[in-house]
Amino acid sequence: MRKIDVFNHIYPPAYHSRLMRVAPDYKDIGKRMRNIPMLADLDVRFRVMDTFDDYQQVLSLPTPPIEVFARREDAIDLAQVANDGMAELVGKYPDRFPAFVASLPLADPDAAVRELHRAVDQLDARGFQIFSNIAGRPISAPEFLPLFEAMAAYDLPIWLHPYRGADMTDFKAEDRSQFEIWWTFGWPYDTSAAMARLVFAGHFDRFPAL
Amino acid sequence: MRKIDVFNHIYPPAYHSRLMRVAPDYKDIGKRMRNIPMLADLDVRFRVMDTFDDYQQVLSLPTPPIEVFARREDAIDLAQVANDGMAELVGKYPDRFPAFVASLPLADPDAAVRELHRAVDQLDARGFQIFSNIAGRPISAPEFLPLFEAMAAYDLPIWLHPYRGADMTDFKAEDRSQFEIWWTFGWPYDTSAAMARLVFAGHFDRFPAL
Repeated sequence: MRKIDVFNHIYPPAYHSRLMRVAPDYKDIGKRMRNIPMLADLDVRFRVMDTFDDYQQVLSLPTPPIEVFARREDAIDLAQVANDGMAELVGKYPDRFPAFVASLPLADPDAAVRELHRAVDQLDARGFQIFSNIAGRPISAPEFLPLFEAMAAYDLPIWLHPYRGADMTDFKAEDRSQFEIWWTFGWPYDTSAAMARLVFAGHFDRFPAL
Repeated sequence: MRKIDVFNHIYPPAYHSRLMRVAPDYKDIGKRMRNIPMLADLDVRFRVMDTFDDYQQVLSLPTPPIEVFARREDAIDLAQVANDGMAELVGKYPDRFPAFVASLPLADPDAAVRELHRAVDQLDARGFQIFSNIAGRPISAPEFLPLFEAMAAYDLPIWLHPYRGADMTDFKAEDRSQFEIWWTFGWPYDTSAAMARLVFAGHFDRFPAL
């Protein structure tokens, strides 16, 4: 039986070198990401993948979200480089990577819509990844609505990835979340809050097939 | 088969009238509490209880926590009045209320320990209730350790009740949690964060039977 892992992260080489230039010291989850060789090293990835029979990965970018560490202009460039790199991987290794999920410069909603259409129409992205907040704003905010509209029109899915850092404290008397609670429990919470906001914004009434 | 509801809230009459005097406008969950007649009205409670066969309630105070709305001196008085009132209810209606859970003036840890001993030794409280944070501080903070020590010595349980208000925002770009997310998802999260902090503080190593 074929197993398709639909939420698997990778740094395409060109994106990775740009990322290391733009944000060499990115923190929280970024710190962890730099210590996972498989994210950037294709040989390591293939060795790991080969330990499973009939196993494929749908590719998407790891955290942190582009808008967290990049300026607006860099973000557009980074998203394009990520999507071009993903499409190249899918084209080169279709048996390993049947599809990829687009990355978008979400802090610039107009540019995000343009890149979404480019990624789907020209590069055959099968969806896009959004984070549970966009630079602190809920994804239900009106400026992101065109992205949901576009995906409903394509009849393609959206990947929702949790994102909060230790700076979202768990206790009012403390500045930072302690003991990794910000992601162990914080990420499922973040996802629930983001989904709830989509519900209350009426997205699932507006786009029942989404 | 007897059903014992071990986490059921009540306002003993004397506590309730003091509460309404001290905090007539308390917000968030307090607003909801004022609209549940059963919390203060014993006749309503008994009518509801009578719809279930062989049903008993272990009593504890509703939110908000005393330390959230009361000054230190008032808090001590309120906790005493609550515990005296609970003991009276248990003494008067033992078939309905087999036991009660003590309330403590938690913002004053020394006073809390004194009231804990009074409630258990003199009033036969079968545990005490703590909230997932004490005026914003984690319950794993050193000043609350004597409470855990006391309960371990008594071999009695602690009731952990979630507590956060809408002022714990879900999104950095917003001041307040929206659409009741602060309790629907926030309270389970708060409980998880509080439990995790107890684990990392070593409480379950120190008091394995707790």
